Amino acid sequence: MASSKCNVGFIGLGAMGFGMATHLVKAGYPVNGFDVWAPTLERFVAAGGKAASTPRAAAKNAPVLIVMVATGAQAMVALFDPDMGAVLDLEKNATIIHCSTAPPEHVPEMRRLLDQHGRQDVELVDAPVSGGTIRAAAGTLTILASGPESSLKAGNELLEEMAGGNLYIIPGGLGAGTKVKMVHQVLAGIHITMASEAMGFAAALGLNTRKAYEALKEDLAGSWMLANRGPHMLENDRTVYSALNIIGKDIGIVCTSGRMEKFPLFLSSASEQVISTGVRAGLGLIDDAQLTRVYLSQEPDLVLKQAADSFTSEDFDTKLQLVKQLLMGVHTVAAVEAMSFGVKVGLDTRTMYDIIKGAAGSSGIFVDRVPMILSGKWENRKTVGKALDELSEALEYAAKIKFPLHLGGTALQIFHMAAQQGLAEEPDVAIVKIWDGASGAYFPRA
Amino acid sequence: MASSKCNVGFIGLGAMGFGMATHLVKAGYPVNGFDVWAPTLERFVAAGGKAASTPRAAAKNAPVLIVMVATGAQAMVALFDPDMGAVLDLEKNATIIHCSTAPPEHVPEMRRLLDQHGRQDVELVDAPVSGGTIRAAAGTLTILASGPESSLKAGNELLEEMAGGNLYIIPGGLGAGTKVKMVHQVLAGIHITMASEAMGFAAALGLNTRKAYEALKEDLAGSWMLANRGPHMLENDRTVYSALNIIGKDIGIVCTSGRMEKFPLFLSSASEQVISTGVRAGLGLIDDAQLTRVYLSQEPDLVLKQAADSFTSEDFDTKLQLVKQLLMGVHTVAAVEAMSFGVKVGLDTRTMYDIIKGAAGSSGIFVDRVPMILSGKWENRKTVGKALDELSEALEYAAKIKFPLHLGGTALQIFHMAAQQGLAEEPDVAIVKIWDGASGAYFPRA
Repeated sequence: MASSKCNVGFIGLGAMGFGMATHLVKAGYPVNGFDVWAPTLERFVAAGGKAASTPRAAAKNAPVLIVMVATGAQAMVALFDPDMGAVLDLEKNATIIHCSTAPPEHVPEMRRLLDQHGRQDVELVDAPVSGGTIRAAAGTLTILASGPESSLKAGNELLEEMAGGNLYIIPGGLGAGTKVKMVHQVLAGIHITMASEAMGFAAALGLNTRKAYEALKEDLAGSWMLANRGPHMLENDRTVYSALNIIGKDIGIVCTSGRMEKFPLFLSSASEQVISTGVRAGLGLIDDAQLTRVYLSQEPDLVLKQAADSFTSEDFDTKLQLVKQLLMGVHTVAAVEAMSFGVKVGLDTRTMYDIIKGAAGSSGIFVDRVPMILSGKWENRKTVGKALDELSEALEYAAKIKFPLHLGGTALQIFHMAAQQGLAEEPDVAIVKIWDGASGAYFPRA
Repeated sequence: MASSKCNVGFIGLGAMGFGMATHLVKAGYPVNGFDVWAPTLERFVAAGGKAASTPRAAAKNAPVLIVMVATGAQAMVALFDPDMGAVLDLEKNATIIHCSTAPPEHVPEMRRLLDQHGRQDVELVDAPVSGGTIRAAAGTLTILASGPESSLKAGNELLEEMAGGNLYIIPGGLGAGTKVKMVHQVLAGIHITMASEAMGFAAALGLNTRKAYEALKEDLAGSWMLANRGPHMLENDRTVYSALNIIGKDIGIVCTSGRMEKFPLFLSSASEQVISTGVRAGLGLIDDAQLTRVYLSQEPDLVLKQAADSFTSEDFDTKLQLVKQLLMGVHTVAAVEAMSFGVKVGLDTRTMYDIIKGAAGSSGIFVDRVPMILSGKWENRKTVGKALDELSEALEYAAKIKFPLHLGGTALQIFHMAAQQGLAEEPDVAIVKIWDGASGAYFPRA
């Protein structure tokens, strides 16, 4: 049956791309892969793929070309380099599936350049992905596809092959998929940083970090990222599941867009600064779970050290409660910041919620609180005043032990602002009013 | 004439206390000093003082007792220790001048404890100081004195001796002086952190840091702290002028009070986290100008290295402009945050302004913008939108070179919030509306 599968060109065989491309090989597609790093090409051939020496060569004879490079700039070079660019040998009526994460304006700009090259015949799908290397290799990535009807139809077979049941078609034309990814990365970036802030705090509080992780991961205070990154912190595992530079690039796209929109993204910005600190400290190419090192400086292995079964915590329950309070406070602000930003960039809030709740940007609080924000049916799980007091307690303790809570401190000021605006007795989701102001234009109000 | 000067007991001969006490010795006062660290006592005797072996011994036969320890807790022990506390041997009708920086509730609590000990006869002055070790030794400290009329009168001679012309009497009773000091420390803490953020940014941008410093220190973008701390960064000077732990303690008091008042202090909180990072990295006992090391991690000496005359900058003027934009944006938010917090804790805004503008918490922007806020006569030096764009440009560049702007990023979100609230075309001081909300209760409005 392999003969019925079309040729696929694949540009970018990094951690994600390699998994995606080899999955297609296993599914029977003849895949002609290109990467700038030769050893990766050798591995790809060993896995049954073919090696192309240029992007142009990868595109040749392929009705579908998949682009999965690290940045928008790399994608532009791969397509439009005057000597080696894929556009020079793209098949007539070929379909480009663009999976790299880039700013929202990137894919529309790519369309414009294709047209300038006289390639109105080429179909283009904006198809950023989420889910990590394991799901990439398994063909179960979350893919957020947008573009013209004809392009989505042309790309559908390959998109379904890579996503399994996790393919979402985002209305709004080219760029809409990227916008959903961007809003998702608000949460991903904050939650990755927060996983290190919380686990570092747990360690600094003297907790057995493995026990703390076990207690947190399924709790309302947990997040997908905490559950996923925690084990990387607890084992002496040097595998780079996702390099700090990758989430650094993504949160950079978020913050740049925030600056373009002049939209307040307090936690995203605080995360960007923490991640920049980590990159500057030389952590850019290692796993993002090692961001704990930024928080623990002189005791960089404290989370690992205190993961030993023999490590005994004092006041485990009381101190763990502080970590939970910290996580819940930050995750509440993060959920509101992300959803508000989504509205600002013109996304449908219900679609955003449905996608994010099952993806890597999810958290217990996100799943619990966002439906209230969308429906306007605010249940009083916790007042603003109570959330404030809980977060404040964590900050007070952190100040005593000189542990920096970059995100916790930032989130607390949002609750303070809400309290100053007279919202202390309202449900904690009332902090949406900080973003949508007096107008209430963003969300239904309780 | 020495015989006409009264005996003075002095508890706490640290960096500040030693200068203050030896100044009194030079002025002819018999000073009986106590400190927990024996070598300091030897130095004090060499400088002409007398050494007391306990706080109780220091207090004996002294009509005036000055307390200049590091924390409120130390002060309580020095006064009320059941065996060695000063209260046990305080002269009848003695005057305690309390100069340590502590939370606002501290001195009133001390009054209550004196009364409980049956010492209603003792006068008590709340007299926190500002100005650094050089002014301490010169007798020209800024002193912010408050308390009952009788206490202020009793302490007046010694207060004037230590302050020269820089004695301010703060109305409002015991604790009012501490509140002014606390609001001053909002600015001191932010500006100290900002000096490192700005000089670190200048270094990371590839500027000759000495030339950058010279250009910044007298500029509207400058601050007293930048002018004062800059030289410590530019020379290989290991002198501890003021340990990071000291400003860490002060900004901790600010943030704790902010939490008690549930008042948003975005930049103070961000500073607290940066300083905690520094303390955790082992910088607590060294000069606070070394906070640059938190920003530069793997190249901790970059500011020093690029201070060499031989170091040539590229695009000096363009890149320096980014540093100025960063400083001005942060200093504008800092001025508004501090003044708003002052109103919140019940201080007179005009008094605060008059004191701070001549003290270590001052900045070019503070002196230029705060009078507009107080008078309601807003001049349009720069719109919110323009300030936002300038700060945004600095953040964008910092993101590219992976330099963390913890305060810059935080300040930018405040401007974003103001823009979202429709204030983009108003003068930049319109960000006061972020703190005093819709009520306009804090300041006159333009």
